[in-house]
Amino acid sequence: MNMEYLSTQPYKGVRDFYPEDMAIQRYIFDGWAKTAERFGYARVDASIFEPSALYRAKGQENEEMVNEQTYTFTDRGDREVTLRPELTPTLARMIAGKRHELYFPVRWYSIPNLYRYERPQRGRLREFWQLNADVFGDNTIACDVDMLVYVANIFKDFGATLDTFVIRVNDRGWMNSVFDSLNLTDEQKRAMFLLLDKKNKITAAAFDAEAKEIIGADFTLPSPSADSRIMQTVNILHDLGITNVVIDPAIVRGFNYYTGLVFEIYDTNEENSRALGGGGRYDNLTEMFGGDPITGIGFGMGDVSMVNFLITHQLLPENLTPAPTLTILPLEEIAAGEAIKIANKFRAEYIATVVDATDRKLGKKLEHACDDGIKFALVLGSDEVTSQSYTLKNLFTREQTTGTAEELIKKILS
Amino acid sequence: MNMEYLSTQPYKGVRDFYPEDMAIQRYIFDGWAKTAERFGYARVDASIFEPSALYRAKGQENEEMVNEQTYTFTDRGDREVTLRPELTPTLARMIAGKRHELYFPVRWYSIPNLYRYERPQRGRLREFWQLNADVFGDNTIACDVDMLVYVANIFKDFGATLDTFVIRVNDRGWMNSVFDSLNLTDEQKRAMFLLLDKKNKITAAAFDAEAKEIIGADFTLPSPSADSRIMQTVNILHDLGITNVVIDPAIVRGFNYYTGLVFEIYDTNEENSRALGGGGRYDNLTEMFGGDPITGIGFGMGDVSMVNFLITHQLLPENLTPAPTLTILPLEEIAAGEAIKIANKFRAEYIATVVDATDRKLGKKLEHACDDGIKFALVLGSDEVTSQSYTLKNLFTREQTTGTAEELIKKILS
Repeated sequence: MNMEYLSTQPYKGVRDFYPEDMAIQRYIFDGWAKTAERFGYARVDASIFEPSALYRAKGQENEEMVNEQTYTFTDRGDREVTLRPELTPTLARMIAGKRHELYFPVRWYSIPNLYRYERPQRGRLREFWQLNADVFGDNTIACDVDMLVYVANIFKDFGATLDTFVIRVNDRGWMNSVFDSLNLTDEQKRAMFLLLDKKNKITAAAFDAEAKEIIGADFTLPSPSADSRIMQTVNILHDLGITNVVIDPAIVRGFNYYTGLVFEIYDTNEENSRALGGGGRYDNLTEMFGGDPITGIGFGMGDVSMVNFLITHQLLPENLTPAPTLTILPLEEIAAGEAIKIANKFRAEYIATVVDATDRKLGKKLEHACDDGIKFALVLGSDEVTSQSYTLKNLFTREQTTGTAEELIKKILS
Repeated sequence: MNMEYLSTQPYKGVRDFYPEDMAIQRYIFDGWAKTAERFGYARVDASIFEPSALYRAKGQENEEMVNEQTYTFTDRGDREVTLRPELTPTLARMIAGKRHELYFPVRWYSIPNLYRYERPQRGRLREFWQLNADVFGDNTIACDVDMLVYVANIFKDFGATLDTFVIRVNDRGWMNSVFDSLNLTDEQKRAMFLLLDKKNKITAAAFDAEAKEIIGADFTLPSPSADSRIMQTVNILHDLGITNVVIDPAIVRGFNYYTGLVFEIYDTNEENSRALGGGGRYDNLTEMFGGDPITGIGFGMGDVSMVNFLITHQLLPENLTPAPTLTILPLEEIAAGEAIKIANKFRAEYIATVVDATDRKLGKKLEHACDDGIKFALVLGSDEVTSQSYTLKNLFTREQTTGTAEELIKKILS
């Protein structure tokens, strides 16, 4: 064949998942699934393909996002398609599509793969996975509180203690009422939200100066009153033992659609300075599909953030990569059927078993099996086949046991 | 907001996965994972994005496939990208990329999402999932046999008996040697493979006429000799109790890369007339990346085929959709924190619990919880909070039990 050789590198900004990478991903996804289900969320998903209109729907800002930060193309049927950059619009579409069949409150979670066209950097990839959990049709404080109890438990269930992460909360509704009391225009409000968003990254003096420029007067953020929804939420959480919740006016979240509680989770280790995840309450997400508004609250966090957090706090177990338990190594004289017949006895008892009848040297096979994490080996010669008595080698301890297949199965399972 | 309402329909040829759909998908994927791991396969994956060159690499035929049957576009960095239509080229890329670090034989499985731009029809969608299992670096008969033992066990592990499916096998190597003995040109061989591919759909007379036209003489397919690899493979399988394996010269598989054993699985119920899955042996898959050839054997089957098979044979369990076990329904006077505090006691014992503090009517809440499959309800009033004695309703049997949270936990877990 006359050709240039292809590169073995993956496409820019995406990952290959070899068994050791996949084992970590499955550990995270399985953990996410278990906590979500314990809190009563049902798993859903949809396609990566969505009509681009779903993301353009909310005006100029979204137009730019779709055009510049997503994978968007026109298919041969002249449909404009976007690879989903987030799941929330899809969930809104699915909720709106079955609003008359669903019983509210609806609690859904999902672990979708998402796509963003951006310059790859630490913690930001073009393809990533994200845990999403949402409750639709419940606007109570109990629902806000329970969402944050759930979020704290995601971390706790991976073994994290409350001193390793902090939940920063704010209330867009309360912020809006503060701005309303100052008679700010929509444009001024918007500018103030953008300024608050960078509050923790600039000096107090710089913040005050910019605020004054926006509203034309000195700006002092009042504290929320004791009976405000956000204070009640925080107090209940503290009372429930979720003591790592703090009010932070700098939490505004980028998306326009949040209307109430907003929150972000941060690692207390400053090496991980970006938010680990976040979310908030929205009250009109299905409006683009018509019908009465449906309230909701949602949370999202990425797979890369989760892995970084677990590594930082030494919470990622070692040796996650699964290996077969037993390798059967038939000598040259042994027929294929004999080796597989014995393998099937172990497999029938749910012992993960492989057969290696290749002509590689026995010593190498044993060495590589051990390096791959396979614990037991059974070398099969004609004596063993005749006597139906086999010798099981423990490749980790070098211990040997001889017996029938039934006896060795008991040994392995013990 | 002044706008046209958006459709709630998904993009053409793809599916939304509501909880009931997702539960079926997870049942299939979990089953696939369990069998693969019992046979010693390690799970891998990669991105949906691949350089288009990976699929164009093998000549004109693939050029057409990429241009007409895939989602292919040029990104803003001028890279031509294809959404993977199959996993095998990706696996070849990953194997080639780590060929010096891996111990062969390597056994990998994957459940990737794949994309094909084609007219949606029964069993063919634009987005689908596929089980892939491959063994690299093992060219023994034992490996061929064990792959088919594994394939039979995928079905058996879902409860299927051997009379519900048949494994049709053939050997491209043997077919080639038959054609070589007739001195056929490459073009004649190719035409004969295409003709064999449709053998089971045309009359014997039509087949004979077309064969004569291609090779210029009457064509009679000889039977493989008793010591041929394909006959040995089938005999060992029969001996191992996999009796539903038959040799079928019409099994040639579309892909050019198969060089030895090829096989397809069929439902014995003729309603499902398309192959449920298939695969074969290839001996040069990594050649486009350079280096010595690596032999391999692979199997693939789609999620839609699997679901259709299970439904046809009544092997899909009912009530797969998970529901929370318990719903806590606080009356109006109950503070949010109280209800969640009690919910957390049940959650700590891994009882999936939700709290519904919305102002919907209690009767409706109980009715909908039952319809959603929630088994227990706990109505929380001030008497219950004061006495710490609660009444648990079994929504399925109407049975009621009163006791402390600890007593009710025992009741639910029993």
